[in-house]
Amino acid sequence: MDEHTLIQKYFSDVGSAYLADKGVRISVGDDAAVFSLPADQESIVSIDTSLEGIHFLKSMKPEDIAFRSAAIAISDLAACGATPHWYIVSITIPSFNENWIMSFTKGLQDISDQFKIPLIGGDTTKGPLSITVQVSGYCNINKSISRSNAGNGDLIFVTGVIGDASRSLSLLKKNINESKETVSYLRPSPRISIGQKLLPLASSAIDVSDGLIQDLSHICKSSEVGAHIYLESIPTSLNRTLLSSEINLGDDYELCFTAPEKHTQKINSIAAEEAVLITCIGEVIEGKEVVVLDSSGNEVEVESGYKHF
Amino acid sequence: MDEHTLIQKYFSDVGSAYLADKGVRISVGDDAAVFSLPADQESIVSIDTSLEGIHFLKSMKPEDIAFRSAAIAISDLAACGATPHWYIVSITIPSFNENWIMSFTKGLQDISDQFKIPLIGGDTTKGPLSITVQVSGYCNINKSISRSNAGNGDLIFVTGVIGDASRSLSLLKKNINESKETVSYLRPSPRISIGQKLLPLASSAIDVSDGLIQDLSHICKSSEVGAHIYLESIPTSLNRTLLSSEINLGDDYELCFTAPEKHTQKINSIAAEEAVLITCIGEVIEGKEVVVLDSSGNEVEVESGYKHF
Repeated sequence: MDEHTLIQKYFSDVGSAYLADKGVRISVGDDAAVFSLPADQESIVSIDTSLEGIHFLKSMKPEDIAFRSAAIAISDLAACGATPHWYIVSITIPSFNENWIMSFTKGLQDISDQFKIPLIGGDTTKGPLSITVQVSGYCNINKSISRSNAGNGDLIFVTGVIGDASRSLSLLKKNINESKETVSYLRPSPRISIGQKLLPLASSAIDVSDGLIQDLSHICKSSEVGAHIYLESIPTSLNRTLLSSEINLGDDYELCFTAPEKHTQKINSIAAEEAVLITCIGEVIEGKEVVVLDSSGNEVEVESGYKHF
Repeated sequence: MDEHTLIQKYFSDVGSAYLADKGVRISVGDDAAVFSLPADQESIVSIDTSLEGIHFLKSMKPEDIAFRSAAIAISDLAACGATPHWYIVSITIPSFNENWIMSFTKGLQDISDQFKIPLIGGDTTKGPLSITVQVSGYCNINKSISRSNAGNGDLIFVTGVIGDASRSLSLLKKNINESKETVSYLRPSPRISIGQKLLPLASSAIDVSDGLIQDLSHICKSSEVGAHIYLESIPTSLNRTLLSSEINLGDDYELCFTAPEKHTQKINSIAAEEAVLITCIGEVIEGKEVVVLDSSGNEVEVESGYKHF
């Protein structure tokens, strides 16, 4: 059996327990995968490529590389309020190493089990390490959350805390691997369940990948509004307010969303049910800019988030 | 506007004329794309990563790189008999060059226009040149062609000719770019229309990417059958029978399919309608092996097709 076939063989079992439940008729190993969509649902799709040195570190275990690459793609579905349906992985690896593939497959299986989704296809090529994950979810027709409906006066919320993943990454770069402190970078938690519960409440949402302020600015641009963010309100696991240099570092994979003020109580209930912090950090205003204010009401300069080029 | 945003801007217009027709409600630029599926249809998805030096040459124009990367993914849909629906492209490029992006976008637009499909999402990262294309098509539920239903006694057919793309590649490697002889490598022709017409006729199909014999062996393995292939019957644009070393070189992106003999007349009619050669090259037999026979009935040794590792 050649290496290509062997990888396909490993991949064909990942999440196969969920194939029937997710309406997948043909999976890994044919020319293409075949699935049907639940009645009255529409399909939500997103793709993310993860590269060594940019989206993950060479020193990470293959299972963490796999988990992280898939989780950051699934996070886009959370921002839409979608229910994960299936995923496909295309991997480029410099050489074939069965132990590496076995560990990588373990990370995919963890994703499949956590989100109850089958891996329905894979492509393998030889080259510089790169992982591309295509994810699909579904949602009632016309009900998914987009970036473009934030309204003037809406409140702005964020799930979890900001900055942990970036500090995790700093530790990992110093080869501190085994600490609890690194899990937020190694194993991001896409907020699928919260996204689903926000469907009737949120006017817009985005997942925080490139940086809180930078990602919020995508909502503002799409919705043609501005925003005020209160620095002291931004949730952190530190015992102090985050510095302006710490709020836009990215990799958080939390949800930043807007909702009318009248939904605040329901949003607080979701936080309690999910045991995840959901914090109001500001409000939508007229204008075009995201302005961060300190406790004295003075504008704070914020460094740019992640630049792709 | 940063480069990432600029690329997204270029991509957002590609095939946008086909968005409504294909049921796409949200496209490039949100967290994810949203589409619905025609009633009574199921969705067929496939992914292919193309790398410089393996799947395309550095010397090729960006528009040809784009076209080829998308075409080889669409070719998988042809093998299923699916109607193309949409595609998503994730590109990794070493640096931002607006002329490069403009040319690349032109190739995507050519794909969109040829197959009437919108580009519904894109991801851009910085790194070694790599193009991943995710394509989706649809088909009546349970009617798509798979690899696994070839039956003992079925005839084996191939569309077009075998070997042209591989000779094109040899010319391109010698920097012979402008010749008509190179188009079969630069701009493969996924056999979508033929695949659709084969839906009620073919018992199995695959697209020839890695090599005619190697790809046919995937059908045989999935269908638990063997095959006899007649070397002299393999169609070529040369004025001689192909050498055994020339039949398994890959990159043809023709369809190899099986069908009961009674459908031969209908298959000949499709060839006439589409003005594409469809040639019977052998038959399905009991067993497990693909055996190539010369005009004297002696077995011919065939070199391995493309090895991924």
